[in-house]
Formats: sequence, C-alpha cells, structure tokens
Amino acid sequence: MNNNTLDGPWFTEICQDQHAAFSMAITEKLHSETTPFQTIDIYATKSFGHLMVIDGYIMLTQRDNFLYHEMMTHPCLFTHNNPKNIAIIGGGDCGTLREVLKHPGVNKVTQIEIDERVTRVAEKYFPELCASNQDSRAEFFFGDGIKWMEEAENIDIIIVDSTDPIGPAEGLFQKPFYESCYAALNEGGILIQQSESPFYHLDLIKSMSDAMKSADFSETRTFLYPQVVYPSGTFTATMAGKNCDLQQYRKNDIANKTFDTVYYNLSMHEGTFAQPEFMKVD
Amino acid sequence: MNNNTLDGPWFTEICQDQHAAFSMAITEKLHSETTPFQTIDIYATKSFGHLMVIDGYIMLTQRDNFLYHEMMTHPCLFTHNNPKNIAIIGGGDCGTLREVLKHPGVNKVTQIEIDERVTRVAEKYFPELCASNQDSRAEFFFGDGIKWMEEAENIDIIIVDSTDPIGPAEGLFQKPFYESCYAALNEGGILIQQSESPFYHLDLIKSMSDAMKSADFSETRTFLYPQVVYPSGTFTATMAGKNCDLQQYRKNDIANKTFDTVYYNLSMHEGTFAQPEFMKVD
Repeated sequence: MNNNTLDGPWFTEICQDQHAAFSMAITEKLHSETTPFQTIDIYATKSFGHLMVIDGYIMLTQRDNFLYHEMMTHPCLFTHNNPKNIAIIGGGDCGTLREVLKHPGVNKVTQIEIDERVTRVAEKYFPELCASNQDSRAEFFFGDGIKWMEEAENIDIIIVDSTDPIGPAEGLFQKPFYESCYAALNEGGILIQQSESPFYHLDLIKSMSDAMKSADFSETRTFLYPQVVYPSGTFTATMAGKNCDLQQYRKNDIANKTFDTVYYNLSMHEGTFAQPEFMKVD
Repeated sequence: MNNNTLDGPWFTEICQDQHAAFSMAITEKLHSETTPFQTIDIYATKSFGHLMVIDGYIMLTQRDNFLYHEMMTHPCLFTHNNPKNIAIIGGGDCGTLREVLKHPGVNKVTQIEIDERVTRVAEKYFPELCASNQDSRAEFFFGDGIKWMEEAENIDIIIVDSTDPIGPAEGLFQKPFYESCYAALNEGGILIQQSESPFYHLDLIKSMSDAMKSADFSETRTFLYPQVVYPSGTFTATMAGKNCDLQQYRKNDIANKTFDTVYYNLSMHEGTFAQPEFMKVD
C-alpha cells in the first residue's frame, strides 16, 4: 500500500483552476527575495536538484529544465534558413541563451529580462545554465521586453521565454506585442513562445494563435513536449512565421548538429509536430 | 502569489523513489473495498471526474484515461497486418477492451483480469469504459494471466494492461511470462505492455526490452505518450514483435479509421515513435 501523506517538507504548486497539484520533497530553502517585480525563492530538492520558484510558481529545476530549454530553441533555429540575430524576451535563468549559443551560425543574442535579480540568482544556483554568459555574442539588457520590441529591428528569431500570462508577462500574450515582433523580424523570421498545457489551457493556445495571425503572421504551429514539473506534465510552444514555411527544416544540419542535446534530435523534430486529435489548432 | 498549501480534501500519490507527488482535489470518497488481491478506492474529484485507486496508486480518471487506453491499443492494432484474436492481460476497467472492439476486423477479445471486483466497480463508476462489455466478441476470464498465457495459442496481439511491477503484477515483467507470450502468438504477432515513465524508470524500460528480446522477440520499440495523472506526466509502452516489422503500419487504414479517437491519429502514430536522445533503447 502506497503512503499518500506528504510528511516532511515539500514544495507544492497548485494549479488552481484544475484542482491539481505537483509536489517535490525539499531539503532546504536556499534563498528568498522580493524584487520590485516578484518574489524569487530557491530550494534544494531531494531528487530534482535546485528549484526556482517565482511568486509561488515553479520556474525550473536542474533535473528537467533541458526539456523546455531545448524545445524553445532548437526546433525554431533549425526551421529558420540561417538565423544570425536572436532576441530572447525573458529567459533570465539563461538556459535558453545557452542553447541558442550552441548554434555556430548565430552572431548575436540579446536577452531582455525585466528582472535582473533572476539572472543574478541563476548565476549562483544554476551556474550550468549561465555557462555561456561570457560569450562575446551575448548581450544583456535588463528592462521591459514589450517596450524594447517596439524599437527593435533586423531580428531573425524572437524567443518569448516568460512566466505565465498573469502579472508582468500578461502583455506578452497580446496582439500589440505580436505586432511589434512582426515589425522587428526580418522576412523569413520566426517568433516562438511558450503556450502552456494542452490539457489544461487549450483555450489559451487557440487565442494566442489567433492573436499571432491577426498580427499578420502567415502561419502558426503548436507543438508538445514533456515537462515533468509544469502543470499536467506536458507543455506546448507555439511558433509563428513571417512568410516562413514552418514545416520545412534543415534536416541535414540537425542530423549533423555540432552540439549535444538530451531530448532534441532529428526524429524528435519530425515527431513533435504531430498534433493529437483533440488539439488541431493550426 | 500562488497559494502553495493543500487545504481541504486531496488525493495524493507519492512517487517514493523520486520524491515527487501528484494530487487531485476530491469531493467525496464513493467506494472502498479490500479484495483478496488489493484495496480498491473510488473518489469523485473536482476536475478529473471519477478516480480509481488501487493500493494507494492512481489507476485512472474519467478525464484523462483516453490517453493510456488509445495508446495501448491503436498503435499495435494498426501495426499488425490483420489482427483477429486479441488477449488483454489485466485491463479490468475495460477501457482497453472498448478501444480494441472499435476495430471492425477483430473477431475475439479475451480479457484475463485477476480481480473480478475491478471490473464490477468499473461497471458502476466508469460505465462509459464498459459500454462495449456486451459485445459478442468479448470474453471475460477472471483469473491469473500468467497461468492463462501458458496454455494460450493463436493470438495475434497481447496487451498487458497491468498495475506497476510490484505486487501481483511483478511476474508480468519477467522472461518466463514473455516466453509464454511468444509461444501463444501467431507469426507476425505483437506483445505490448505499459513500461512506466521515461524520466523516472528508464532502467525498467531497458530491462523489459532486454527480457523480451531474450524470450526470442525479434524487435522491440518503446514509445512515449502523455498521461497527466501518472508519475512524471509522461508514460511509455513497449511493443515486441514476433517476426513483425514494428516500423510498418497500415497508413491508409489509420487515415480512414471508422471510429473516433481523442488523442491518436495518423500523425500521432508517426510522431510517437520518435525517441528522445536520452532514451534510445531499441
């Protein structure tokens, strides 16, 4: 008989609207601070390594962040013909930045994180994700991504690696921001954004996709990937193309990629775009 | 700020070896009984419908069981050339049986469940899963699946839809049982079995696959699918072929299938066999 009582110290995230929760046993609270933007907590867990929590929501763990970071990066970079100039909105833990910098053709990556403290805390507790922060191609701007995007230009790929669409990130899920992204992208450019759980938030996926199309993106494509510590255990990302065929990708370059991944590979790229019967949104 | 305390009544399953847990808010305990084999509990949940728990482990909910039942059934039935005679070991909730009976070419399905009470309880609390139990092609045998298999023959597909490899189901994950399955299968036959989480139990997947091959199966193939209420949110199934090419499948029949599914379709069949870099086991 399994024991069904959470004895001892656990961190629990409740998905309120779904009446479901995920918990990890913790050994220690390592850090807590309230910044002008949010509250950041760091825990040591028993089997997921360090855990970052913002405003009570799980952001990432050392054990399973590879899923999110690889899938927010490699599918869109290998779909684009020749991505040189990348912008990351959010992404303060620097894990997405690290993955982007693995691509030898990339010349410049600008990371626009509203809360510098997220990056400083990540440098201390997730040093492996910040391992490429000294790369000369990386530029850090700490400020409002929505405003930054209004004046940006000549970008090949925009990766929106934000918190959920409540609080400071809300504007990142709306049409005016997508219009700025569209204007900032070169022809053939791609916007990619995390789009929550296919089982819990299908309405959000559909409304995001509609808002992207209403901002003139020619095509969108939502794909699934597992994320153990996020609600429902499966998450999605949505890509939007500026006159870019999202179903074409650089097969040979994926097959001959010059860097290691833990989850992503050519067969995963091909397979991940399959859509369950219940969520045909594109 | 999210609330991180599980107030009120919740059902929690702890994955002990991973120090992780999943919880659902419940409104009522509808049923509880201890049979000669195990303890069966049924709860009403706030957003997952009815929940069946055996020995403290989540078996299924009304909301998300379609994932497991479709993926344990349709990929292998559409891989086999012409499946007529199917055996289900376990599967007492009858959801797998219902999916198998959707295939018009199937002549006979025998369900061998050790604990008749699971089926009787499912008839009451999961009536939609038992909707096909009166189908004249369905035969119910309540007894030991390992013994039954020792004398079985002329089977096209064996679906092992069991509890985890502890307690009464342990023998279902071992070489002697696989040898019985091999002998019971016709040429071109397929064995499929649930094989736990790719993130938590990769060692089990590898040892199962090895045991199947040591029982003379020519080929195995493990695939992933989401399962919200199971540990890590992603589960696997492993197929083993008796001189059957598991990478071929009846594309036209899938594209023109005569029944509805919620998750499975042709693109999911193609996509689901993609294997993450970390788990290339086949």
